[in-house]
Amino acid sequence: MNLILLSPSDFLPSSTTVRLTGRRHQHVLEIIKPKVNDVLVVGVENGRMGEGRIIKISDKILELEVVLSQDPPRKLNVLLCVALMRPIVLKRVLHTASAMGVPEIHLFHSRQVEKSFWQSTALKNDAIRDELILGLEQARDTVLPTVHFHKRFKPFVEDVLPELLKGRQGIVADPSGDLISTLNFQPSTSKVFIIGPEGGFIPYEVEKFRKVGCQIVSLGERILKVETAIVALLAKMF
Amino acid sequence: MNLILLSPSDFLPSSTTVRLTGRRHQHVLEIIKPKVNDVLVVGVENGRMGEGRIIKISDKILELEVVLSQDPPRKLNVLLCVALMRPIVLKRVLHTASAMGVPEIHLFHSRQVEKSFWQSTALKNDAIRDELILGLEQARDTVLPTVHFHKRFKPFVEDVLPELLKGRQGIVADPSGDLISTLNFQPSTSKVFIIGPEGGFIPYEVEKFRKVGCQIVSLGERILKVETAIVALLAKMF
Repeated sequence: MNLILLSPSDFLPSSTTVRLTGRRHQHVLEIIKPKVNDVLVVGVENGRMGEGRIIKISDKILELEVVLSQDPPRKLNVLLCVALMRPIVLKRVLHTASAMGVPEIHLFHSRQVEKSFWQSTALKNDAIRDELILGLEQARDTVLPTVHFHKRFKPFVEDVLPELLKGRQGIVADPSGDLISTLNFQPSTSKVFIIGPEGGFIPYEVEKFRKVGCQIVSLGERILKVETAIVALLAKMF
Repeated sequence: MNLILLSPSDFLPSSTTVRLTGRRHQHVLEIIKPKVNDVLVVGVENGRMGEGRIIKISDKILELEVVLSQDPPRKLNVLLCVALMRPIVLKRVLHTASAMGVPEIHLFHSRQVEKSFWQSTALKNDAIRDELILGLEQARDTVLPTVHFHKRFKPFVEDVLPELLKGRQGIVADPSGDLISTLNFQPSTSKVFIIGPEGGFIPYEVEKFRKVGCQIVSLGERILKVETAIVALLAKMF
């Protein structure tokens, strides 16, 4: 936790003092082990960041005097669309995408996605929110990415994706595409990255992406895990 | 497992037939669920790759008729030096570096590395080898990276690193450096990537790296996990 994410309800009425209990209090107490007057990095959810000076710390509560002097870091200029993955992988992907500054995450169905993945408790709002917050706390950001679900492939590609692609370049990671090293990657151009399931896209799906104007790009002959491929693609925007 | 990694001892005497039991047999039986005459991707450790046609499969053994027709994929043109990390993170880093094609991994001590990490069983030869093999099986490669340990920072930077840097560009990831987007990254130039511990390098260490000719590079204002930073840097070589 490199930043303590605060919500407006953490503040004592009409003051700049926050009082924390629970997970954040526990983490500070056990991992950071600070003393009174130490200063921690804080940020208000979807708001500004700054410093929190410790004015009280006990095994029950943590109180901070907060000054918010800084805007959160810029988001990446890219929307991330990923075929839904196993729950344990989904958690890592949400965490990492949130930490790397993806503003919008779309999870969609495709042929090689196991239907049972859609029933996972990892898709519940609270579970998703928890991972996104851990990512923000890791990276020092305050703005939660939005997460969207598309349980049917065709409506996603035909109706949703064309909207996302307005003013953006669509890039689909697939072994059938041109080698990424042969492309001239411009981080200044807005992009939509589209990444398939562990088993890959079927040719019909790749064709559908091509038809709505996406470019098919290969990350090389090595088969990477979905979470590795995501980081590798996002790093092209640094 | 996208490739079954074979060792010479898996082959029946003077034949092109391999007989597998144990982990690989179990994985094929339970996950791939093939039948006789199905063809699987195989490769010989540190050797060629090709196809294995199933000639016998039971709950005891798996026999494949092997034809090796292909060279393994090229390695990345980069050596990876990372401050030693928590055992659970080390496992993921070894797996990912192996999958992405890093030929040589150096793990070194630095000020913010917990001394206890050096006692972990994750550093035993067999534990390391297991993770590297899982990475090769993921990516479809056969050539094991070499892994080297440097328990003292100063001898590593003063004696070992200059040798590694001969004919290679040294890049240290540190928030104090120039933004990576401002650099002209040439994947064709051999490189040494150097990545610090979760707590970062101390200024003295950054100075030591600079003195042996390394360039200090920042991945941006977000604080990334070590394993994310590694993938992001390696992806610059794609």
